[in-house]
Amino acid sequence: MAKDKIVLAYSGGLDTSVILKWLKETYDAEIIAFTADIGQKEELDGLEEKALATGASKVYIDDLREEFAKDFINPMFQAGALYEGQYLLGTSIARPLIAKRMVDIARAEGAVAIAHGATGKGNDQVRFELTAAALAPDIAVIAPWRLEAFREQFPGRAEMIAYAEKHGIPVQASASKPYSMDRNLLHISFESGMLEDPWFDASADSNKDMYVLSVSPEDAPDQAEYVELTFEAGNCVAVNGEQMNPLGVMEKLNELGGKHGIGRVDMVENRFVGMKSRGVYETPGGTILFTAHRKMESLTMDRDVMHLRDSLISKYATLVYNGFWFAPERLALQALVAESQKNVSGVVRLKLYKGNVIGAGVKSPVSLYNPDIATMEADPSKAYDQGDATGFIRLNALRLKVSSGVEQSKQK
Amino acid sequence: MAKDKIVLAYSGGLDTSVILKWLKETYDAEIIAFTADIGQKEELDGLEEKALATGASKVYIDDLREEFAKDFINPMFQAGALYEGQYLLGTSIARPLIAKRMVDIARAEGAVAIAHGATGKGNDQVRFELTAAALAPDIAVIAPWRLEAFREQFPGRAEMIAYAEKHGIPVQASASKPYSMDRNLLHISFESGMLEDPWFDASADSNKDMYVLSVSPEDAPDQAEYVELTFEAGNCVAVNGEQMNPLGVMEKLNELGGKHGIGRVDMVENRFVGMKSRGVYETPGGTILFTAHRKMESLTMDRDVMHLRDSLISKYATLVYNGFWFAPERLALQALVAESQKNVSGVVRLKLYKGNVIGAGVKSPVSLYNPDIATMEADPSKAYDQGDATGFIRLNALRLKVSSGVEQSKQK
Amino acid sequence: MAKDKIVLAYSGGLDTSVILKWLKETYDAEIIAFTADIGQKEELDGLEEKALATGASKVYIDDLREEFAKDFINPMFQAGALYEGQYLLGTSIARPLIAKRMVDIARAEGAVAIAHGATGKGNDQVRFELTAAALAPDIAVIAPWRLEAFREQFPGRAEMIAYAEKHGIPVQASASKPYSMDRNLLHISFESGMLEDPWFDASADSNKDMYVLSVSPEDAPDQAEYVELTFEAGNCVAVNGEQMNPLGVMEKLNELGGKHGIGRVDMVENRFVGMKSRGVYETPGGTILFTAHRKMESLTMDRDVMHLRDSLISKYATLVYNGFWFAPERLALQALVAESQKNVSGVVRLKLYKGNVIGAGVKSPVSLYNPDIATMEADPSKAYDQGDATGFIRLNALRLKVSSGVEQSKQK
Amino acid sequence: MAKDKIVLAYSGGLDTSVILKWLKETYDAEIIAFTADIGQKEELDGLEEKALATGASKVYIDDLREEFAKDFINPMFQAGALYEGQYLLGTSIARPLIAKRMVDIARAEGAVAIAHGATGKGNDQVRFELTAAALAPDIAVIAPWRLEAFREQFPGRAEMIAYAEKHGIPVQASASKPYSMDRNLLHISFESGMLEDPWFDASADSNKDMYVLSVSPEDAPDQAEYVELTFEAGNCVAVNGEQMNPLGVMEKLNELGGKHGIGRVDMVENRFVGMKSRGVYETPGGTILFTAHRKMESLTMDRDVMHLRDSLISKYATLVYNGFWFAPERLALQALVAESQKNVSGVVRLKLYKGNVIGAGVKSPVSLYNPDIATMEADPSKAYDQGDATGFIRLNALRLKVSSGVEQSKQK
Repeated sequence: MAKDKIVLAYSGGLDTSVILKWLKETYDAEIIAFTADIGQKEELDGLEEKALATGASKVYIDDLREEFAKDFINPMFQAGALYEGQYLLGTSIARPLIAKRMVDIARAEGAVAIAHGATGKGNDQVRFELTAAALAPDIAVIAPWRLEAFREQFPGRAEMIAYAEKHGIPVQASASKPYSMDRNLLHISFESGMLEDPWFDASADSNKDMYVLSVSPEDAPDQAEYVELTFEAGNCVAVNGEQMNPLGVMEKLNELGGKHGIGRVDMVENRFVGMKSRGVYETPGGTILFTAHRKMESLTMDRDVMHLRDSLISKYATLVYNGFWFAPERLALQALVAESQKNVSGVVRLKLYKGNVIGAGVKSPVSLYNPDIATMEADPSKAYDQGDATGFIRLNALRLKVSSGVEQSKQK
Repeated sequence: MAKDKIVLAYSGGLDTSVILKWLKETYDAEIIAFTADIGQKEELDGLEEKALATGASKVYIDDLREEFAKDFINPMFQAGALYEGQYLLGTSIARPLIAKRMVDIARAEGAVAIAHGATGKGNDQVRFELTAAALAPDIAVIAPWRLEAFREQFPGRAEMIAYAEKHGIPVQASASKPYSMDRNLLHISFESGMLEDPWFDASADSNKDMYVLSVSPEDAPDQAEYVELTFEAGNCVAVNGEQMNPLGVMEKLNELGGKHGIGRVDMVENRFVGMKSRGVYETPGGTILFTAHRKMESLTMDRDVMHLRDSLISKYATLVYNGFWFAPERLALQALVAESQKNVSGVVRLKLYKGNVIGAGVKSPVSLYNPDIATMEADPSKAYDQGDATGFIRLNALRLKVSSGVEQSKQK
Repeated sequence: MAKDKIVLAYSGGLDTSVILKWLKETYDAEIIAFTADIGQKEELDGLEEKALATGASKVYIDDLREEFAKDFINPMFQAGALYEGQYLLGTSIARPLIAKRMVDIARAEGAVAIAHGATGKGNDQVRFELTAAALAPDIAVIAPWRLEAFREQFPGRAEMIAYAEKHGIPVQASASKPYSMDRNLLHISFESGMLEDPWFDASADSNKDMYVLSVSPEDAPDQAEYVELTFEAGNCVAVNGEQMNPLGVMEKLNELGGKHGIGRVDMVENRFVGMKSRGVYETPGGTILFTAHRKMESLTMDRDVMHLRDSLISKYATLVYNGFWFAPERLALQALVAESQKNVSGVVRLKLYKGNVIGAGVKSPVSLYNPDIATMEADPSKAYDQGDATGFIRLNALRLKVSSGVEQSKQK
Repeated sequence: MAKDKIVLAYSGGLDTSVILKWLKETYDAEIIAFTADIGQKEELDGLEEKALATGASKVYIDDLREEFAKDFINPMFQAGALYEGQYLLGTSIARPLIAKRMVDIARAEGAVAIAHGATGKGNDQVRFELTAAALAPDIAVIAPWRLEAFREQFPGRAEMIAYAEKHGIPVQASASKPYSMDRNLLHISFESGMLEDPWFDASADSNKDMYVLSVSPEDAPDQAEYVELTFEAGNCVAVNGEQMNPLGVMEKLNELGGKHGIGRVDMVENRFVGMKSRGVYETPGGTILFTAHRKMESLTMDRDVMHLRDSLISKYATLVYNGFWFAPERLALQALVAESQKNVSGVVRLKLYKGNVIGAGVKSPVSLYNPDIATMEADPSKAYDQGDATGFIRLNALRLKVSSGVEQSKQK
């Protein structure tokens, strides 16, 4: 009789290697290892062999970078999503894509479960599993770190190494870093270790080696660099006049941002599972894109559409952060966002300089800005009669006057 | 019989000088000149004499700087107000204070009207007049620039200068700048002139002379500087450990921010009167304060309070921008904000470097961040059981699974 | 040389008859009279002749009822719009349609302006003119009641009658009612006159004659009547199993609601132009539809989509009330609403009895309600493990516990 | 050595009786029985004896009705809270009060835990436990129905009865009803049993016996009855001119509402734990109060305060429904609500008739409604100049015209 199949999100690191073997033993199942290439730039070479050597029956290594940029990063940036006023959601937005592919593989393979190595304290477990729930409610999820048996078997790193050695799982003798990292096309995150002390100065020179995607502002070039981003309907489609697909845009902006020390954020944030945590992020290209997009909107988006959308950013960002990408309320918000972006087209010029993304001009064939109306000089277009403001102000003031009159009569 | 009195917001510049005389003639009234010192640092010396020479019957020059910092800037920064994702509302927040004092003087003097020199195209007229409506619905407002007779008499600057000369009004022979400026304790704004072209690069070296409160990032010191801000209940009460009143805080932060090239914003914004306009702002101290306040909140503010407040920032900022400071809906929002700030206390350390305000540590005696809970290491406090996440995720996923199941059955 | 053309929204009543003639004289223009049939059931017979006799060069009488039901009422009811918790927006939603057709006629006729007889105090002027601004910014609007010359010429009804008689305009010698009325397919509104006193009891027996669309609850049948509404994607498509187009649905529900005394509302509301006013409405069919739609949603709409949509109802309703139907922010909200309605399909059974619309059952092939999960009995589907709630509650409680601990430590 | 103490929310019914004994045995602890009188009108006589006979070491029976009305119902009605457009939150609002008193008793008694008999599928468990978390994070909670051991021991009602008999627990031989009920001062709820079928017509004559607090509209008096409610700062303080404390108000309104068949709601709702469920409610007095409060606001509350508050009702209601009464975000919202209610004072007259609550007049010494302004007749106060509307509309239309112009130019 055929064994059950389990699809495991596999990175080749110690945790998922141990989990691969452990799953195989515990469930007496075929384990299909799946690695998504979402721009993490980690060593993907040899991963297939390693997975097979560890016991996988089959290995998927899928390049999802273009899909990531096009169907996940782009719509999220259209929404102007920013979590708690600071975080560009670099990790959050990658998880639904990975889980979606896992589910697709599970369906194609007839697997009964998917498994992941995320801990029981973080947001990633939620993001993986809510995606699976939304896309494949019938497929079970195995999260070993939330199983008491697993935690008891592996109370610490030492036990995992021992287990790996015992089972002939190849383990890299990498000097463990005093923090954890997670990287993709949009960003890299750092947490744990010395970062757990929020008073620790992650920007200090002594901590310089931690960063990967960007130089420090102090080490960035002394010469500013200009860049022009072209937008069509809310998406960046060209950099410095060169048409690019979404992946190309991200790679180009990452290069530029990293070079100029752009996009580092150090924050305390609120996890969905209820506690605060401290994270440090590098989002070089994303920070440029975020700034440019807002500036493009400022010229081309209707005022009240912007204010409405802005009032929903906190909600949208929280949904993405919490893993509700495939939830119907995110789709409803996205429909509003898509409608709001139809006219967000034109060119934004930015000046990159030692950590700064400085607006240096914006233009559009569909600009809603009309200097003839706005000017304090004589209005050549006669589009605006200053006398109109009198009635405008009076009617806006009417309810305030009535309230005020009542207030005064109360005090008598 | 005593003449009617009119209180005029007077700056000593060409416009309000001409208006002073024009009002006196047109209405055959006593004109009381009023100048608020809100940190504009313009020449206040000799202003009294000049007003009297121009025809004022009485002159008020009132130092409102401390009130401005304490009762206007502080509550607004508690709210985290940011207009259209970019503007710290430096001009908007000053107007209600000026109008409030005008109204107080009008009451004390028994004046029948207040007058101002704001144009019919801008936001300031609205802010002045909504404040007056809310505080003194019985007092009339005269806005000469919205009167056709006045506009016809003064179609351009030349006619104003001629009028001034004819009436012996002292006019400074200042070389007119190709843009307009407005300064106070919180910021300086620039608009008009060459800035009306949104493609004009206001950050260019060739435009360096425009800026007043800050050096360019390029010209800021090569050496970063650390600063510590102490917060109590959402307000900054000490800088680098030194207790200061709100005015002192703003002055100190302006000095630091200006030195390090911090707080320049160049944007297209949406005026309340219906058109887009382009503004450039320097808000050096405010930018430091804004950043520090968010970081203080990140450590001490409850997650759901933050998300609720964040969803209302757009609304709050729009109210301030549009001049509804003394409107009951702003007061209702402020009550929510005040409740949210009770626990926002502690110290934020920032690193100022060439335009960047970099978080470099945060601590608080009432911190809600508990590294023992957040840690990915073993949890010494046992406050968090990873197994709990299973139930948490399952119940969050339940409605997604049900929806998904229905969706799948529809496709069959 | 050809004369300019003006399109006038014409009802045949005294006001618009006088305005027709007055416009013709004042502007020396051709006046095109336009009457929209939106279900007002007023005498449309003879209207063409009357308009021509009064001086119109051409007359349009267009039946817009089906368009009104399909493209205006339906999307608004999908949104669950309710203004200030009480008003179903019966007048508000009709205005954009009328103005849209006026603009279409103006374009087709090459007219330079449109004109209407709405007063300067109400909401209708705004709704007409914002629609025109959004659809035809180049066409001028003439609102005689806002012109001082017109108001001076016609300070009261007597002067209008005299003018009509002088110009041979046929005037009905109708006994004037002590209130004004406005009727369409969705509702009838009453205001002014004795209704201006908010303490006046409009529900009193002595006021019975005012109502048009419905009997009083007291006069409704003693026998309840059941009705079933079938929904597809948020719209009612059948009543009692009989397929109907949107117009047919409204007519059928109006008949049922009117018979059973349903849909009267008496309220004080806030006009866009700044004052409160008192209105009484009859919306018999709309009230049934509104209730049924919510009940259909309760069974088929995802929880978080509903909560999101509900948080936007006040905004949506205010936009419609204020006349922003064709504004981009209404379109953005509508996109969200449309997305939310995809699954709102099924049957609602209601019991109509003396003013009450009582839910009497709801069912759907795409119901999200699963009694096997909800039941307090044993769960045959095993879809829900009660133990999961422990983790769910613990993680939801975590931040409250941390806050509470900090609070307690402060008090020590 | 003294035994640990556990405080149990005890009703005297089969479940909590069995739980009392089971807790005592399982934890070898002293069990303190606590019953809150929140208006459930169930037999409280003999409850103390029964609890002691079942093994309680001490019994608290506390009358919390006045506190319930004053500190829970009143602030919630000030907020206009309505869950999912239909539910007045009668059960939800009682739970935090009960849990608060449990915690107080636990503190006074030095208890280590509190326990309740709510199931793992409902909202009440969450409401109890979130309250406990917010008020006493150090006290443990025991929820037997979520413990697998307990569920295994008591798979059904038969096992509980057998256990009760074995331990000499007095069990009433009541004929079990085919649904469950929960009653308090504000309402009674029904769920389960035949109600689990959402197509079941709970309004049918054959189901009449289920209802407790109200007659059917069909059985209500043929004669309408008028009632006047007097409000001060958002709270009802007198009925028909007679001053009453909050408890007295609720009792009087319940009597009136019940008599006239008012306040029945039958709905499908979304539980916090993730599933939909069907509930039927009777809220006779609450429905009158809710309607009256809105009408009082309509006359005395500023427009923009109302729209702001209305946009937050869904959020507020969800917080109460989900059990976050003592969470900081509810307190923040309440601060906004309290500010909004300062002027909500006056008298509302209602007509009660066969299920209908009909507005029949409203007046206030601080009314913001000024018929002199609103009237379509000549305005004696000259407070409103119709010509002002022209400028008001033009500036509101400006952005629409600009957008429209851009749109048209795109199509060329």
